[in-house]
Amino acid sequence: MTLEQARKDLKTLQAKLSAYRHALGLISYDGSTAAPKQTASNRAHSMPILSEAVYQLTTGPETVALLEFLDENRAALTEKERRQVFLLLKDLRFHASIPLDEFLAYRRLLVESDDVWHRAKPANDFASFAPYLEKIFDAKKRFASYAAPDKDPYDFWLNEYEAGLNTAVCDRFFAAVRSGVVPLLKAVMEAEPVSDACILGDFPEKEQEELARSLMDFIGLDRGHVGLSATEHPFTTSLGSHFDTRITTHIYRENVSYSLFSVVHEGGHALYETGGADDLAYTVLDGGVSMSIHESQSRFYENYIARSLPFVRAVFPKIRELFPQQMRGVSPEQFWAAVNKAQPTLIRTKADELTYSLHVMVRYELEKRVMAGDLAVRDLPAAWNALYKEYLGIDVPDDTRGVLQDSHWGGGMVGYFPSYALGSAYGAQFMARMKETVDVDACLERGDLSPVNAWNREHIWQYGKLYPPQELLERVLGGPFDPGYYIRYLEEKYRKLCRL
Amino acid sequence: MTLEQARKDLKTLQAKLSAYRHALGLISYDGSTAAPKQTASNRAHSMPILSEAVYQLTTGPETVALLEFLDENRAALTEKERRQVFLLLKDLRFHASIPLDEFLAYRRLLVESDDVWHRAKPANDFASFAPYLEKIFDAKKRFASYAAPDKDPYDFWLNEYEAGLNTAVCDRFFAAVRSGVVPLLKAVMEAEPVSDACILGDFPEKEQEELARSLMDFIGLDRGHVGLSATEHPFTTSLGSHFDTRITTHIYRENVSYSLFSVVHEGGHALYETGGADDLAYTVLDGGVSMSIHESQSRFYENYIARSLPFVRAVFPKIRELFPQQMRGVSPEQFWAAVNKAQPTLIRTKADELTYSLHVMVRYELEKRVMAGDLAVRDLPAAWNALYKEYLGIDVPDDTRGVLQDSHWGGGMVGYFPSYALGSAYGAQFMARMKETVDVDACLERGDLSPVNAWNREHIWQYGKLYPPQELLERVLGGPFDPGYYIRYLEEKYRKLCRL
Repeated sequence: MTLEQARKDLKTLQAKLSAYRHALGLISYDGSTAAPKQTASNRAHSMPILSEAVYQLTTGPETVALLEFLDENRAALTEKERRQVFLLLKDLRFHASIPLDEFLAYRRLLVESDDVWHRAKPANDFASFAPYLEKIFDAKKRFASYAAPDKDPYDFWLNEYEAGLNTAVCDRFFAAVRSGVVPLLKAVMEAEPVSDACILGDFPEKEQEELARSLMDFIGLDRGHVGLSATEHPFTTSLGSHFDTRITTHIYRENVSYSLFSVVHEGGHALYETGGADDLAYTVLDGGVSMSIHESQSRFYENYIARSLPFVRAVFPKIRELFPQQMRGVSPEQFWAAVNKAQPTLIRTKADELTYSLHVMVRYELEKRVMAGDLAVRDLPAAWNALYKEYLGIDVPDDTRGVLQDSHWGGGMVGYFPSYALGSAYGAQFMARMKETVDVDACLERGDLSPVNAWNREHIWQYGKLYPPQELLERVLGGPFDPGYYIRYLEEKYRKLCRL
Repeated sequence: MTLEQARKDLKTLQAKLSAYRHALGLISYDGSTAAPKQTASNRAHSMPILSEAVYQLTTGPETVALLEFLDENRAALTEKERRQVFLLLKDLRFHASIPLDEFLAYRRLLVESDDVWHRAKPANDFASFAPYLEKIFDAKKRFASYAAPDKDPYDFWLNEYEAGLNTAVCDRFFAAVRSGVVPLLKAVMEAEPVSDACILGDFPEKEQEELARSLMDFIGLDRGHVGLSATEHPFTTSLGSHFDTRITTHIYRENVSYSLFSVVHEGGHALYETGGADDLAYTVLDGGVSMSIHESQSRFYENYIARSLPFVRAVFPKIRELFPQQMRGVSPEQFWAAVNKAQPTLIRTKADELTYSLHVMVRYELEKRVMAGDLAVRDLPAAWNALYKEYLGIDVPDDTRGVLQDSHWGGGMVGYFPSYALGSAYGAQFMARMKETVDVDACLERGDLSPVNAWNREHIWQYGKLYPPQELLERVLGGPFDPGYYIRYLEEKYRKLCRL
């Protein structure tokens, strides 16, 4: 094998992978958007066949030989090629460490588990789901011990979702959240309640759709490359490359704010994806580097940009134009207050900015304890309810709205939750850093986000997966991550809003 | 290789092919429906990679060995397996007959040609397109001579799109069309004009969408398995198997009939696809057997069912409910007359039921002459215009609305056009046959198409590609195809409509 040929083959391999991922991503996206209701079994036929082809491509003997050859010659590679080889080898070595029969059994387990969870959740039947969840946690521990025998299993999975992350970092972060947010929420609940009456009422779909499109334009999304669809749960996905990105929303007629902030949130993900350098397309470096960094961008636009008073002032004329009856007599300041109202609730995905991290903290503490063997799966519901009482001050009436609410654990995603909260906290520190050189409020007031987007593109988006997340973070911040920015931001905001 | 293993491998091969075709079909469908406007280059990255995988699967050495082994042992196979092996081998042998470099050059030619055609058509610039078209006709002749040296090249391609079809059959058919339809059209044009005022006006999208969905239900489509989307040009596609079929329509606010009949036309295709026996799914026997048979079903529902007076009477209450202003004072009979108005026009895809076959006949005669070497590509525009004058009695003002209007020739589809007209004619004879045992008018009047659909399912749909089209035709008809049914149907209908 010559180096020249091997570099070509590396490119071809990644081009093929991106085509298969285009296909798989689109079949899944189609299933959530346009596909007729009774066609799931048809997708269940095609997706394993295409996934199997991806598995062959990423782990087959030719690929092993190619990547090992390139790794031996890494000094002769470009920075981007080295990172491509590193990421492909990492994936390969992880799969090589797990006996194939155990891996296949695990994949079957996840399919069954997902099915059982879908029935257990509405039936409030944790007992039927528990045996599957036990097996999943067992597999996560076992796979971690195969791949990294010397590492704490939970640390292994934290690091898988966010390279560089570990329990020590998370513990420090959540300790700051606990000591900052829990008393702040208590103070907010004792203050005079904020009214959200102006965002509730009847807001027809057609006008909400127009609002969604105008928000996409407003935050600077290129609608030639970013599509919008309706789904049960909003998400963002890129198909084949960052040249084709889709966001989705869910419109609730009775609440104008849900889709509004959902579009900006997913729009933040899409800005990150589509902001990658063009030459990352069709390589494994294309797309966001980790869930935390992704959430840092989505929550940056959703919370730090769109829930700010200057932004609300800038878009309010459009809202008033679309909903003249509903907005009669409403001021931008009232609208701003309404969309920032905070209160403890049961469901994470519907939580407000202030309480969101508390929901995540509950999940972090529980999965950490289960992974350490300090908590049995069967005891999860009681522990869940106790922490909701402790952190959010509310009673969980059933497991449907408690421990069964999320699909993550049943889908094998253990160690994933912390990134949701970390992303918010990264975003707060990014904003502080950005404000050193960009007058963000002035940009928002004149309705021009391009300096904001240019900063994010220069410091974050363009790199795709080139730098590991913790390295990227340090580059952007010029120093270590400090959760204090996030806590102070929340304190200032809610002190002002609730006149504490 | 054991027979048992080979039969398993045959099944696996077809399952894989269906998954890749699911992916390719969906990427293409997405490009016409949900994809953002500037993402074509992204699909152009992925589709050749997945197509290449299909090519490897269908022509690779393992597949050759498998199919030849099964072909040698065909006596031990089921009827369905024999047909699967036959169809896969046919495809394989065709590709094996063409030198790979010529095949790849041809694929590149088609990409270029399509691009040139897209620019030449609006620019009314046939001269820029002619060199590509010459090369395409040359390639079609050459490939036919490789694959079937003893056969007339045009006959070869007719037979490729419709096994059993040849110039002799087409000549007989079009002679009947010429002698029947040309004078009938002349008489219609001399009669008192039919008014189509009631279908023109302003028909908002939302109500037309509801009409489309109610028509889907009315003709018996299962919307759990058949989706509806909006596209520039309507089409039908099945994704992965007949368990997931999509139809599309194009709504024109100013004309209520376009989308109405488009939905029923595509709905006919979708009834055929989804009516296949379940065990055809994920094999090469799934889906319609040929373009002619497919058109026989789409035009059956569009013309023989939906443009009939009993059908119009049955759906008219729904139309009046959705468009009370526009339908004020309009009777079902007037609506029926309006949607059957015939007149010579320039564009095939917008032609009415009476003139449609004349448009096709022009194309048939021209491509036959070019393939025989009797007409040079550069002389196509003049010959086109002369035939439009002769058959339709109209002058073609430019090539944009003349010889450049269709994408087929530039896309390498030579020998394909006749099936559009043959399908209509098959449909007329199917209807006559069906009426021997089913009281179709009574079904339409009481709004119950299930006996009609059951007949089509029993005689046509369930078989997928199991029988070659001409054999299927003879089975359904219990005798040879006779274009007289079609001509007599048109004569009766237009005599009644125009009081000739």
